[in-house]
Amino acid sequence: MKQYEIDKLNRVKRGANRATYDIETINKIIDAGFLGYVGYIYDGYPISIPMAYARKEDKIYLHGSTGNRMLQAILEAEKTSITIMHLDALVLARSGLHHSVNYRSVTLFGKVSKIEDDTKKTAILEQIINNMVPNRWDSLRPMHQKELDRTLVVEFTIETASAKIRDEGVNDEPKDYDLPIWAGIVPIKQIAEFPISDEKLEKGIEIPEHVLNYYHNNKQ
Amino acid sequence: MKQYEIDKLNRVKRGANRATYDIETINKIIDAGFLGYVGYIYDGYPISIPMAYARKEDKIYLHGSTGNRMLQAILEAEKTSITIMHLDALVLARSGLHHSVNYRSVTLFGKVSKIEDDTKKTAILEQIINNMVPNRWDSLRPMHQKELDRTLVVEFTIETASAKIRDEGVNDEPKDYDLPIWAGIVPIKQIAEFPISDEKLEKGIEIPEHVLNYYHNNKQ
Repeated sequence: MKQYEIDKLNRVKRGANRATYDIETINKIIDAGFLGYVGYIYDGYPISIPMAYARKEDKIYLHGSTGNRMLQAILEAEKTSITIMHLDALVLARSGLHHSVNYRSVTLFGKVSKIEDDTKKTAILEQIINNMVPNRWDSLRPMHQKELDRTLVVEFTIETASAKIRDEGVNDEPKDYDLPIWAGIVPIKQIAEFPISDEKLEKGIEIPEHVLNYYHNNKQ
Repeated sequence: MKQYEIDKLNRVKRGANRATYDIETINKIIDAGFLGYVGYIYDGYPISIPMAYARKEDKIYLHGSTGNRMLQAILEAEKTSITIMHLDALVLARSGLHHSVNYRSVTLFGKVSKIEDDTKKTAILEQIINNMVPNRWDSLRPMHQKELDRTLVVEFTIETASAKIRDEGVNDEPKDYDLPIWAGIVPIKQIAEFPISDEKLEKGIEIPEHVLNYYHNNKQ
Protein backbone atom coordinates (compact mmCIF):
# COMPACT_ATOMS: atom_id res chain seq x y z
CA MET A 1 0.00 0.00 0.00
CA LYS A 2 1.48 3.30 -1.06
CA GLN A 3 -1.37 5.59 -0.17
CA TYR A 4 -4.33 5.61 2.19
CA GLU A 5 -7.65 4.89 0.59
CA ILE A 6 -9.74 8.03 0.25
CA ASP A 7 -13.13 7.90 1.93
CA LYS A 8 -15.45 10.39 3.57
CA LEU A 9 -13.41 10.44 6.80
CA ASN A 10 -10.03 11.49 5.41
CA ARG A 11 -11.02 13.19 2.16
CA VAL A 12 -9.77 16.78 2.09
CA LYS A 13 -12.58 18.97 0.80
CA ARG A 14 -11.16 22.48 1.12
CA GLY A 15 -7.97 23.03 -0.84
CA ALA A 16 -8.06 19.51 -2.29
CA ASN A 17 -5.21 20.45 -4.64
CA ARG A 18 -2.96 20.65 -1.58
CA ALA A 19 -3.99 17.26 -0.27
CA THR A 20 -2.09 14.00 -0.47
CA TYR A 21 -2.77 10.53 0.82
CA ASP A 22 0.71 9.23 0.04
CA ILE A 23 2.03 7.24 3.00
CA GLU A 24 5.68 8.20 2.57
CA THR A 25 4.81 11.91 2.46
CA ILE A 26 2.57 11.56 5.51
CA ASN A 27 5.26 9.69 7.48
CA LYS A 28 7.83 12.35 6.62
CA ILE A 29 5.59 15.07 8.07
CA ILE A 30 5.01 12.97 11.21
CA ASP A 31 8.73 12.33 11.63
CA ALA A 32 9.59 16.03 11.28
CA GLY A 33 8.04 16.75 14.69
CA PHE A 34 7.51 15.39 18.16
CA LEU A 35 4.29 17.12 19.32
CA GLY A 36 0.87 16.16 18.01
CA TYR A 37 -2.66 17.23 18.92
CA VAL A 38 -4.60 14.20 20.13
CA GLY A 39 -8.39 14.48 20.16
CA TYR A 40 -10.79 13.16 22.75
CA ILE A 41 -14.38 13.73 23.67
CA TYR A 42 -15.36 14.82 27.17
CA ASP A 43 -18.85 15.84 28.20
CA GLY A 44 -19.73 16.17 24.51
CA TYR A 45 -16.83 18.53 23.79
CA PRO A 46 -14.12 17.58 21.29
CA ILE A 47 -10.84 18.53 23.00
CA SER A 48 -7.29 18.29 21.70
CA ILE A 49 -4.21 17.93 23.82
CA PRO A 50 -0.63 18.39 22.61
CA MET A 51 1.38 15.24 23.32
CA ALA A 52 4.88 14.00 22.60
CA TYR A 53 4.90 11.06 20.20
CA ALA A 54 7.06 8.71 18.21
CA ARG A 55 6.21 6.74 15.07
CA LYS A 56 7.17 3.23 14.08
CA GLU A 57 5.73 2.03 10.78
CA ASP A 58 1.96 2.62 11.02
CA LYS A 59 1.97 3.07 14.82
CA ILE A 60 2.09 6.31 16.77
CA TYR A 61 3.06 5.95 20.43
CA LEU A 62 1.86 8.24 23.22
CA HIS A 63 2.49 8.14 26.93
CA GLY A 64 1.34 9.82 30.10
CA SER A 65 0.40 9.26 33.69
CA THR A 66 -2.01 6.43 34.41
CA GLY A 67 -4.42 9.14 35.60
CA ASN A 68 -4.35 11.05 32.30
CA ARG A 69 -7.98 11.88 31.40
CA MET A 70 -7.31 12.11 27.69
CA LEU A 71 -5.46 8.78 27.41
CA GLN A 72 -8.18 7.07 29.45
CA ALA A 73 -10.86 8.57 27.18
CA ILE A 74 -9.23 7.45 23.93
CA LEU A 75 -8.61 3.94 25.35
CA GLU A 76 -12.28 3.73 26.21
CA ALA A 77 -13.38 5.06 22.80
CA GLU A 78 -10.81 2.74 21.16
CA LYS A 79 -10.23 5.32 18.42
CA THR A 80 -9.19 8.90 17.89
CA SER A 81 -7.43 11.27 15.52
CA ILE A 82 -4.09 13.04 15.78
CA THR A 83 -3.20 16.29 14.01
CA ILE A 84 0.38 17.39 13.44
CA MET A 85 1.28 20.68 11.76
CA HIS A 86 4.51 22.44 10.93
CA LEU A 87 4.18 26.13 10.15
CA ASP A 88 6.61 27.24 7.44
CA ALA A 89 5.63 30.77 6.40
CA LEU A 90 3.09 33.56 6.51
CA VAL A 91 1.72 34.27 3.04
CA LEU A 92 0.84 37.96 2.75
CA ALA A 93 -1.28 38.64 -0.31
CA ARG A 94 -2.67 41.81 -1.83
CA SER A 95 -6.18 40.99 -0.60
CA GLY A 96 -7.34 39.73 2.77
CA LEU A 97 -8.94 36.65 1.24
CA HIS A 98 -5.68 35.33 -0.18
CA HIS A 99 -3.72 35.63 3.04
CA SER A 100 -2.60 32.18 4.03
CA VAL A 101 0.22 30.20 5.59
CA ASN A 102 2.65 27.69 4.20
CA TYR A 103 2.59 24.50 6.23
CA ARG A 104 2.85 20.74 6.28
CA SER A 105 0.06 19.02 8.21
CA VAL A 106 -1.39 15.57 8.68
CA THR A 107 -4.58 14.27 10.22
CA LEU A 108 -4.35 10.63 11.26
CA PHE A 109 -7.32 8.42 12.11
CA GLY A 110 -6.81 5.20 13.97
CA LYS A 111 -7.53 2.72 16.69
CA VAL A 112 -6.11 2.88 20.17
CA SER A 113 -4.86 0.21 22.52
CA LYS A 114 -2.80 -0.03 25.70
CA ILE A 115 0.69 -1.51 25.79
CA GLU A 116 1.04 -3.75 28.83
CA ASP A 117 4.36 -5.50 28.35
CA ASP A 118 7.15 -3.79 30.33
CA THR A 119 9.90 -4.49 27.79
CA LYS A 120 7.79 -3.08 24.99
CA LYS A 121 6.74 -0.10 27.14
CA THR A 122 10.37 0.71 27.89
CA ALA A 123 11.38 0.45 24.24
CA ILE A 124 8.57 2.85 23.31
CA LEU A 125 9.52 5.38 25.99
CA GLU A 126 13.07 5.24 24.64
CA GLN A 127 11.73 5.95 21.18
CA ILE A 128 9.62 8.90 22.38
CA ILE A 129 12.58 10.50 24.22
CA ASN A 130 14.88 9.94 21.24
CA ASN A 131 12.28 11.43 18.88
CA MET A 132 12.52 14.62 20.95
CA VAL A 133 16.35 14.62 21.13
CA PRO A 134 18.14 11.89 19.13
CA ASN A 135 20.40 9.62 21.20
CA ARG A 136 19.24 11.08 24.53
CA TRP A 137 18.01 7.82 26.06
CA ASP A 138 21.34 6.02 26.34
CA SER A 139 22.75 8.78 28.56
CA LEU A 140 19.93 8.43 31.15
CA ARG A 141 19.65 6.22 34.20
CA PRO A 142 17.45 3.18 33.58
CA MET A 143 13.76 3.51 34.50
CA HIS A 144 12.62 2.28 37.89
CA GLN A 145 9.88 -0.36 37.91
CA LYS A 146 7.56 1.94 39.86
CA GLU A 147 8.02 4.66 37.23
CA LEU A 148 7.09 2.20 34.52
CA ASP A 149 4.07 1.08 36.54
CA ARG A 150 2.65 4.59 36.72
CA THR A 151 3.23 5.30 33.04
CA LEU A 152 0.50 4.59 30.53
CA VAL A 153 1.77 3.75 27.05
CA VAL A 154 -0.76 3.91 24.24
CA GLU A 155 -0.44 2.57 20.72
CA PHE A 156 -2.35 4.33 17.97
CA THR A 157 -2.55 2.41 14.69
CA ILE A 158 -3.06 4.62 11.66
CA GLU A 159 -6.00 3.30 9.69
CA THR A 160 -6.40 6.20 7.33
CA ALA A 161 -4.89 9.64 7.00
CA SER A 162 -4.44 12.71 4.87
CA ALA A 163 -1.80 15.38 4.53
CA LYS A 164 -2.10 18.96 3.40
CA ILE A 165 0.90 20.89 2.21
CA ARG A 166 1.11 24.49 1.08
CA ASP A 167 4.56 25.40 -0.16
CA GLU A 168 4.36 28.26 -2.59
CA GLY A 169 4.20 32.00 -2.94
CA VAL A 170 1.27 34.39 -3.06
CA ASN A 171 -1.76 33.52 -5.20
CA ASP A 172 -3.68 36.72 -5.81
CA GLU A 173 -6.64 37.52 -8.03
CA PRO A 174 -5.32 38.23 -11.57
CA LYS A 175 -6.57 41.83 -11.42
CA ASP A 176 -4.83 42.54 -8.13
CA TYR A 177 -1.25 42.16 -9.43
CA ASP A 178 -1.32 45.73 -10.74
CA LEU A 179 -2.11 47.19 -7.33
CA PRO A 180 0.64 49.11 -5.53
CA ILE A 181 0.50 46.71 -2.58
CA TRP A 182 3.44 44.73 -1.23
CA ALA A 183 2.93 40.96 -1.19
CA GLY A 184 5.28 38.16 -0.26
CA ILE A 185 6.03 35.53 2.31
CA VAL A 186 7.62 35.65 5.74
CA PRO A 187 9.36 32.33 6.48
CA ILE A 188 8.62 30.97 9.96
CA LYS A 189 10.83 28.45 11.73
CA GLN A 190 10.93 26.72 15.07
CA ILE A 191 14.49 26.91 16.33
CA ALA A 192 16.57 25.83 19.31
CA GLU A 193 18.72 28.21 21.30
CA PHE A 194 21.92 27.21 23.08
CA PRO A 195 21.34 24.62 25.86
CA ILE A 196 21.30 25.89 29.45
CA SER A 197 22.79 23.47 31.97
CA ASP A 198 20.84 22.70 35.16
CA GLU A 199 22.13 24.82 38.05
CA LYS A 200 22.39 21.72 40.19
CA LEU A 201 24.59 19.90 37.70
CA GLU A 202 27.59 18.11 39.24
CA LYS A 203 30.81 19.98 38.51
CA GLY A 204 32.71 18.88 35.43
CA ILE A 205 29.75 17.58 33.44
CA GLU A 206 29.89 19.10 29.97
CA ILE A 207 27.00 19.44 27.54
CA PRO A 208 27.06 16.06 25.75
CA GLU A 209 27.48 15.58 22.03
CA HIS A 210 23.87 14.49 21.41
CA VAL A 211 22.57 17.76 22.93
CA LEU A 212 25.08 19.89 21.01
CA ASN A 213 24.10 18.04 17.84
CA TYR A 214 20.45 18.78 18.52
CA TYR A 215 21.28 22.45 18.94
CA HIS A 216 23.37 22.58 15.75
CA ASN A 217 20.68 20.81 13.73
CA ASN A 218 17.92 23.08 15.01
CA LYS A 219 19.48 26.51 15.46
CA GLN A 220 18.61 29.15 12.93
CA MET B 1 -14.91 37.98 37.14
CA LYS B 2 -11.17 37.53 37.44
CA GLN B 3 -10.98 33.79 36.95
CA TYR B 4 -13.05 31.06 35.34
CA GLU B 5 -15.00 28.92 37.75
CA ILE B 6 -13.43 25.51 38.16
CA ASP B 7 -15.68 22.58 37.36
CA LYS B 8 -15.22 19.09 36.00
CA LEU B 9 -14.86 20.32 32.41
CA ASN B 10 -11.91 22.69 32.83
CA ARG B 11 -10.30 21.35 36.00
CA VAL B 12 -6.67 20.38 35.33
CA LYS B 13 -6.04 17.02 36.95
CA ARG B 14 -2.49 16.20 35.86
CA GLY B 15 0.09 18.77 36.95
CA ALA B 16 -2.54 20.82 38.79
CA ASN B 17 0.27 22.91 40.30
CA ARG B 18 0.90 24.28 36.80
CA ALA B 19 -2.72 25.17 36.20
CA THR B 20 -4.36 28.56 36.35
CA TYR B 21 -7.88 29.77 35.69
CA ASP B 22 -6.94 33.45 35.80
CA ILE B 23 -8.59 35.27 32.90
CA GLU B 24 -5.80 37.79 32.35
CA THR B 25 -3.18 35.03 32.18
CA ILE B 26 -5.33 32.99 29.80
CA ASN B 27 -5.93 36.00 27.52
CA LYS B 28 -2.21 36.76 27.43
CA ILE B 29 -1.47 33.21 26.20
CA ILE B 30 -4.22 33.51 23.57
CA ASP B 31 -2.91 36.87 22.38
CA ALA B 32 0.66 35.56 22.06
CA GLY B 33 -0.34 33.45 19.05
CA PHE B 34 -2.53 33.35 15.98
CA LEU B 35 -3.05 29.60 15.38
CA GLY B 36 -5.32 27.49 17.57
CA TYR B 37 -6.49 23.88 17.36
CA VAL B 38 -10.27 23.81 17.04
CA GLY B 39 -12.02 20.55 17.85
CA TYR B 40 -14.95 18.98 16.09
CA ILE B 41 -16.56 15.58 15.94
CA TYR B 42 -16.98 13.74 12.65
CA ASP B 43 -18.19 10.17 12.34
CA GLY B 44 -17.52 9.71 16.06
CA TYR B 45 -13.90 10.89 15.79
CA PRO B 46 -12.71 13.96 17.70
CA ILE B 47 -10.61 15.91 15.17
CA SER B 48 -8.67 19.12 15.64
CA ILE B 49 -7.86 21.61 12.92
CA PRO B 50 -5.33 24.44 13.21
CA MET B 51 -7.05 27.74 12.46
CA ALA B 52 -6.07 31.40 12.49
CA TYR B 53 -7.92 33.36 15.16
CA ALA B 54 -8.26 36.69 16.87
CA ARG B 55 -9.60 37.47 20.34
CA LYS B 56 -11.76 40.35 21.51
CA GLU B 57 -12.72 40.23 25.19
CA ASP B 58 -14.26 36.77 25.75
CA LYS B 59 -14.77 36.06 22.04
CA ILE B 60 -12.50 34.12 19.71
CA TYR B 61 -13.13 34.65 16.00
CA LEU B 62 -12.52 32.05 13.31
CA HIS B 63 -13.14 32.14 9.59
CA GLY B 64 -13.08 29.89 6.58
CA SER B 65 -14.86 28.97 3.42
CA THR B 66 -18.62 28.48 3.63
CA GLY B 67 -17.93 24.83 2.70
CA ASN B 68 -15.54 24.24 5.64
CA ARG B 69 -16.53 20.91 7.25
CA MET B 70 -15.13 21.81 10.64
CA LEU B 71 -16.85 25.20 10.87
CA GLN B 72 -20.13 23.66 9.77
CA ALA B 73 -19.77 20.90 12.39
CA ILE B 74 -19.11 23.28 15.29
CA LEU B 75 -21.98 25.57 14.22
CA GLU B 76 -24.27 22.56 14.27
CA ALA B 77 -22.96 21.33 17.64
CA GLU B 78 -23.15 24.95 18.92
CA LYS B 79 -20.10 24.34 21.11
CA THR B 80 -16.49 23.27 20.93
CA SER B 81 -13.08 23.69 22.53
CA ILE B 82 -9.95 25.42 21.28
CA THR B 83 -6.41 24.57 22.37
CA ILE B 84 -3.50 26.98 21.93
CA MET B 85 0.05 26.08 22.94
CA HIS B 86 3.37 27.89 22.76
CA LEU B 87 6.41 25.64 23.14
CA ASP B 88 9.21 27.38 25.04
CA ALA B 89 11.85 24.74 25.82
CA LEU B 90 12.79 21.09 25.96
CA VAL B 91 13.46 19.99 29.54
CA LEU B 92 16.10 17.27 29.55
CA ALA B 93 16.26 15.53 32.92
CA ARG B 94 18.52 12.81 34.32
CA SER B 95 15.72 10.23 34.03
CA GLY B 96 13.30 9.55 31.20
CA LEU B 97 10.28 10.14 33.45
CA HIS B 98 11.23 13.74 34.22
CA HIS B 99 11.76 14.78 30.62
CA SER B 100 9.26 17.49 29.84
CA VAL B 101 8.75 20.70 27.93
CA ASN B 102 8.27 24.28 29.02
CA TYR B 103 5.15 25.72 27.49
CA ARG B 104 2.17 28.03 27.84
CA SER B 105 -1.13 26.46 26.85
CA VAL B 106 -4.83 27.12 27.16
CA THR B 107 -7.92 25.03 26.58
CA LEU B 108 -11.02 27.11 25.98
CA PHE B 109 -14.58 25.79 26.12
CA GLY B 110 -17.39 27.76 24.63
CA LYS B 111 -20.43 28.22 22.48
CA VAL B 112 -20.36 28.85 18.77
CA SER B 113 -22.45 31.07 16.54
CA LYS B 114 -22.31 32.50 13.04
CA ILE B 115 -21.73 36.19 12.32
CA GLU B 116 -24.12 37.34 9.58
CA ASP B 117 -23.70 41.11 9.51
CA ASP B 118 -21.31 42.19 6.73
CA THR B 119 -19.86 45.16 8.63
CA LYS B 120 -19.15 42.98 11.64
CA LYS B 121 -17.74 40.20 9.44
CA THR B 122 -15.36 42.64 7.76
CA ALA B 123 -14.22 44.06 11.10
CA ILE B 124 -13.49 40.54 12.35
CA LEU B 125 -11.52 39.58 9.21
CA GLU B 126 -9.49 42.74 9.72
CA GLN B 127 -8.79 41.67 13.27
CA ILE B 128 -7.75 38.13 12.23
CA ILE B 129 -5.32 39.47 9.58
CA ASN B 130 -3.90 42.04 11.99
CA ASN B 131 -3.47 39.37 14.67
CA MET B 132 -1.20 37.55 12.22
CA VAL B 133 0.75 40.68 11.16
CA PRO B 134 -0.10 43.91 13.02
CA ASN B 135 -1.28 46.77 10.78
CA ARG B 136 -1.45 44.59 7.66
CA TRP B 137 -5.13 45.21 6.87
CA ASP B 138 -4.92 48.92 6.06
CA SER B 139 -2.45 48.25 3.24
CA LEU B 140 -4.79 45.81 1.43
CA ARG B 141 -7.45 46.44 -1.15
CA PRO B 142 -10.97 46.38 0.34
CA MET B 143 -12.83 43.06 0.26
CA HIS B 144 -15.23 42.39 -2.60
CA GLN B 145 -18.80 41.58 -1.65
CA LYS B 146 -18.58 38.15 -3.30
CA GLU B 147 -15.49 37.35 -1.20
CA LEU B 148 -17.37 38.29 1.94
CA ASP B 149 -20.34 36.18 0.83
CA ARG B 150 -18.24 33.04 0.54
CA THR B 151 -16.49 33.58 3.87
CA LEU B 152 -17.92 32.06 7.02
CA VAL B 153 -17.14 33.99 10.19
CA VAL B 154 -17.67 32.18 13.46
CA GLU B 155 -17.80 33.62 16.97
CA PHE B 156 -16.70 31.41 19.84
CA THR B 157 -17.64 32.73 23.28
CA ILE B 158 -15.37 31.45 26.05
CA GLU B 159 -17.55 30.02 28.80
CA THR B 160 -14.82 28.37 30.80
CA ALA B 161 -11.13 27.75 30.33
CA SER B 162 -7.88 26.69 31.92
CA ALA B 163 -4.24 27.42 31.29
CA LYS B 164 -1.19 25.33 32.01
CA ILE B 165 2.23 26.86 32.22
CA ARG B 166 5.55 25.17 32.81
CA ASP B 167 8.37 27.66 33.09
CA GLU B 168 11.19 26.20 35.12
CA GLY B 169 14.27 24.05 35.02
CA VAL B 170 14.74 20.32 35.50
CA ASN B 171 12.92 18.58 38.38
CA ASP B 172 14.71 15.31 39.01
CA GLU B 173 14.34 12.70 41.74
CA PRO B 174 16.41 13.85 44.77
CA LYS B 175 18.69 10.79 44.48
CA ASP B 176 19.44 11.43 40.81
CA TYR B 177 21.26 14.74 41.27
CA ASP B 178 24.48 12.86 42.11
CA LEU B 179 24.48 10.98 38.81
CA PRO B 180 27.08 11.94 36.20
CA ILE B 181 24.35 12.81 33.67
CA TRP B 182 23.94 16.14 31.94
CA ALA B 183 20.57 17.81 32.50
CA GLY B 184 19.27 21.17 31.42
CA ILE B 185 16.92 22.94 29.08
CA VAL B 186 17.06 23.75 25.39
CA PRO B 187 15.05 26.93 24.69
CA ILE B 188 12.75 26.64 21.67
CA LYS B 189 11.41 29.63 19.79
CA GLN B 190 9.27 30.26 16.75
CA ILE B 191 10.98 32.92 14.69
CA ALA B 192 10.49 34.87 11.47
CA GLU B 193 13.12 35.06 8.75
CA PHE B 194 13.54 38.01 6.41
CA PRO B 195 10.47 38.63 4.19
CA ILE B 196 10.67 37.45 0.57
CA SER B 197 8.86 39.70 -1.91
CA ASP B 198 6.48 38.14 -4.43
CA GLU B 199 8.23 37.66 -7.80
CA LYS B 200 5.32 39.33 -9.54
CA LEU B 201 5.54 42.47 -7.41
CA GLU B 202 5.28 45.72 -9.36
CA LYS B 203 8.67 47.42 -9.63
CA GLY B 204 9.49 49.98 -6.96
CA ILE B 205 7.31 48.53 -4.20
CA GLU B 206 9.43 48.24 -1.06
CA ILE B 207 8.77 45.96 1.92
CA PRO B 208 6.45 48.12 4.03
CA GLU B 209 7.12 49.18 7.60
CA HIS B 210 4.47 46.89 9.15
CA VAL B 211 6.14 43.83 7.58
CA LEU B 212 9.65 44.94 8.59
CA ASN B 213 8.35 45.56 12.11
CA TYR B 214 6.89 42.05 12.20
CA TYR B 215 10.26 40.68 11.16
CA HIS B 216 12.19 42.70 13.72
CA ASN B 217 9.80 41.75 16.52
CA ASN B 218 9.92 38.03 15.64
CA LYS B 219 13.45 37.35 14.41
CA GLN B 220 15.75 35.49 16.75
